[in-house]
Amino acid sequence: MRLSRYFMPILKENPKEAEIVSHRLMLRTGMIRQQSQGIYSWLPLGKRVLDKVNKIIREEQNRSGAIELLMPTLQSADLWQESGRYDDYGKEMLRIKDRQDRPMLYGPTNEEMITDIFRSYVKSYKDLPLNLYHIQLKFRDEIRPRFGTMRSREFLMKDAYSFDLTREDAIHSYNKMFVAYLRTFDRLGLRAIPMRADTGPIGGNHSHEFIILADTGESEVFCHKSFVDFDIPSVDTDFDDVAGLQSIFDKWTSVYAATSEMHDEAAFGTIAEGDRLSARGIEVGHIFYFGTKYSEPMGAKVQGPDGKEHVVHMGSYGIGPTRLVPAIIEASHDENGIIWPASVAPFDAVVINMKAGDAACDAACEKIYAALTKAGKDTLYDDTDDRAGTKFATADLIGVPAQVIAGPRSVANGEIELKDRKTGARETMTIEAAINKLVG
Amino acid sequence: MRLSRYFMPILKENPKEAEIVSHRLMLRTGMIRQQSQGIYSWLPLGKRVLDKVNKIIREEQNRSGAIELLMPTLQSADLWQESGRYDDYGKEMLRIKDRQDRPMLYGPTNEEMITDIFRSYVKSYKDLPLNLYHIQLKFRDEIRPRFGTMRSREFLMKDAYSFDLTREDAIHSYNKMFVAYLRTFDRLGLRAIPMRADTGPIGGNHSHEFIILADTGESEVFCHKSFVDFDIPSVDTDFDDVAGLQSIFDKWTSVYAATSEMHDEAAFGTIAEGDRLSARGIEVGHIFYFGTKYSEPMGAKVQGPDGKEHVVHMGSYGIGPTRLVPAIIEASHDENGIIWPASVAPFDAVVINMKAGDAACDAACEKIYAALTKAGKDTLYDDTDDRAGTKFATADLIGVPAQVIAGPRSVANGEIELKDRKTGARETMTIEAAINKLVG
Repeated sequence: MRLSRYFMPILKENPKEAEIVSHRLMLRTGMIRQQSQGIYSWLPLGKRVLDKVNKIIREEQNRSGAIELLMPTLQSADLWQESGRYDDYGKEMLRIKDRQDRPMLYGPTNEEMITDIFRSYVKSYKDLPLNLYHIQLKFRDEIRPRFGTMRSREFLMKDAYSFDLTREDAIHSYNKMFVAYLRTFDRLGLRAIPMRADTGPIGGNHSHEFIILADTGESEVFCHKSFVDFDIPSVDTDFDDVAGLQSIFDKWTSVYAATSEMHDEAAFGTIAEGDRLSARGIEVGHIFYFGTKYSEPMGAKVQGPDGKEHVVHMGSYGIGPTRLVPAIIEASHDENGIIWPASVAPFDAVVINMKAGDAACDAACEKIYAALTKAGKDTLYDDTDDRAGTKFATADLIGVPAQVIAGPRSVANGEIELKDRKTGARETMTIEAAINKLVG
Repeated sequence: MRLSRYFMPILKENPKEAEIVSHRLMLRTGMIRQQSQGIYSWLPLGKRVLDKVNKIIREEQNRSGAIELLMPTLQSADLWQESGRYDDYGKEMLRIKDRQDRPMLYGPTNEEMITDIFRSYVKSYKDLPLNLYHIQLKFRDEIRPRFGTMRSREFLMKDAYSFDLTREDAIHSYNKMFVAYLRTFDRLGLRAIPMRADTGPIGGNHSHEFIILADTGESEVFCHKSFVDFDIPSVDTDFDDVAGLQSIFDKWTSVYAATSEMHDEAAFGTIAEGDRLSARGIEVGHIFYFGTKYSEPMGAKVQGPDGKEHVVHMGSYGIGPTRLVPAIIEASHDENGIIWPASVAPFDAVVINMKAGDAACDAACEKIYAALTKAGKDTLYDDTDDRAGTKFATADLIGVPAQVIAGPRSVANGEIELKDRKTGARETMTIEAAINKLVG
């Protein structure tokens, strides 16, 4: 992408309304724009990151056996009356009347709708287990939306729903998501800690939040330090291995970790003082097993091997991509801007032409830009006539991992400088060496 | 994807509520499910097709220089009061009050919001031309939604918005989209005919609808037959070539084509009778140049090369992916089901195991399935214990282009049958030959 043709409206000043660093940097870099209170546009730079986050989430959901569909944002109130949640949900639910005066709502979550889909088609235990997910907009009319897309009203959620014949099978489905989540957050460059959690309006009795530690987190969390060293399940994990997944779950829940709602000061006190971690955290995922809470009132049943009807056991599993993006920034930035993990960086590399219009600089930059693009690297080419200092600052601010700096003096020697955003290390090398290193 | 682990709820009977073939087939194959009047879920098979359609749309938008972002579905009423459309839009606009009693709406289109984004950031002609698009949900509260996702209330739209300094530049931006649309529909396996169109509530004075011919179309259309043979602009088209794009536009608008609203019986009458085509059509895209209709009242201005402020010239460009899917089916099906163009088929190939559980059949199928999957082919493996006849019918119904049929007799000879869904041609060949042919 040539910057001269791109739309990346960098703000010169830090926006005053932003209280936390991720919100400030997302506004400053032109990743997002507020359209109404708690409602945001994702501008091109932000959209690129969001797409990469979604892609990783999808890959790990699919790997675990979950199947993607797409439910609508607007739902009929009828479904929610069936489950009994229509009245319970309160003012966070955006209620709407259509032109026929029918009561509708903008879905804050999809347990009811997916249960309706399930009961319409699935009749036999032979079609189980089943886990269906989508990545779709939700609306929750928070009284105090804040921190940009960290707590917005219209937001994106990956929500998966599992259906099983028995509680035992449902726990295996739960463990699949537990492992998929560990892998997902790890690939996003985050160390997320699963913590026993309160189930809130979703209901159920077996639930974990995945929390990353950050000073700006809304939750107070307590855990054992050893989490930092736990191994992430490998890409070859067999999701059909019931005992194998259970052992991963057991390992990751073997030491103390809880949010403040579930905190047990006495249990925490038994940990050696040096191993206690009391901190603030950001919730980036939440999984629930809730048995027959929805399947029972909504009549989601299958015929079992015994020929009888059984109410299915369900779980639901959420990740908020539009919250993950700021969470990643909270976890990875410095005074110059964002430091993207390579997996979600909006661009893999930026080619900085220090003297656009200079024939040698232009030729060198075009060559590198073409080679990287051809190799499938998302490359930003700063071909503008801004001053070199502005270009360096922008490249650091938007956090592109690899920066290729081409100035007249080095280019005259067939060389460029390669800078690593994270470490700040600079290395002079030939153009060919730089291409080989980045394409590698 | 193993069918035994997939969610593809094929209906045994043709659904009675469906009036047109695409709606019937989309329900029958479990591509979609109606959740409320005119509101649909895209089940996994449908979601796959929708994703492929969106991918092609994106690729062609990007190729033309348009830049993707993502605006929210809910908009503040204020913006629409600025443009003057809040009162004009009538009951099709879904109006909402949030918990603070602020008037909101579910966007039926995004001219106002994108103009607001533009005016917030872009101040100089140097940042033009600019074309921003998103693929996002819209809601239009149609009084009579029908034909499944062909005319639904909640639907997906790709909407692009161009900004230029002058009318002349804006026409070039219009031509870019015109060419991108010709390429997009062609890649989707459709022959779309651009027709001069009424501009309706979007406004403006230069507009084309892209129409595909189908008996079930809602529009009556009139055109010259020669469209069928016009060349599609190549993948190497230079979108910066102003004269080149204009000549493509001129060619494609050189002969008569109009919807009934714009029909001129006298002009149509001058065409030789044998060359006249009067038919029904489905609108699959609509492009508008509307000058300063929104930029003027909303104050979207840039500084020109003359140092003065200029109100920008705008256009908007829509394609409806959730309508395109049924449109493709209307254009490509037979009595056995859907015939997907390869570019949007939910699976490239299906491997039909005629005797699941038979060691030789299983081994042959697994080998083929693994080889195709490894080569990046989207492959469905029918490993269920359904009867062979059911499997054949399903494969034809869902329209997978290539069908690999593995039965005990042929597998004993190291062979399978390869069937072409479109022609029905079957060919016996070795397993290796089949893999080579399909991967090739």
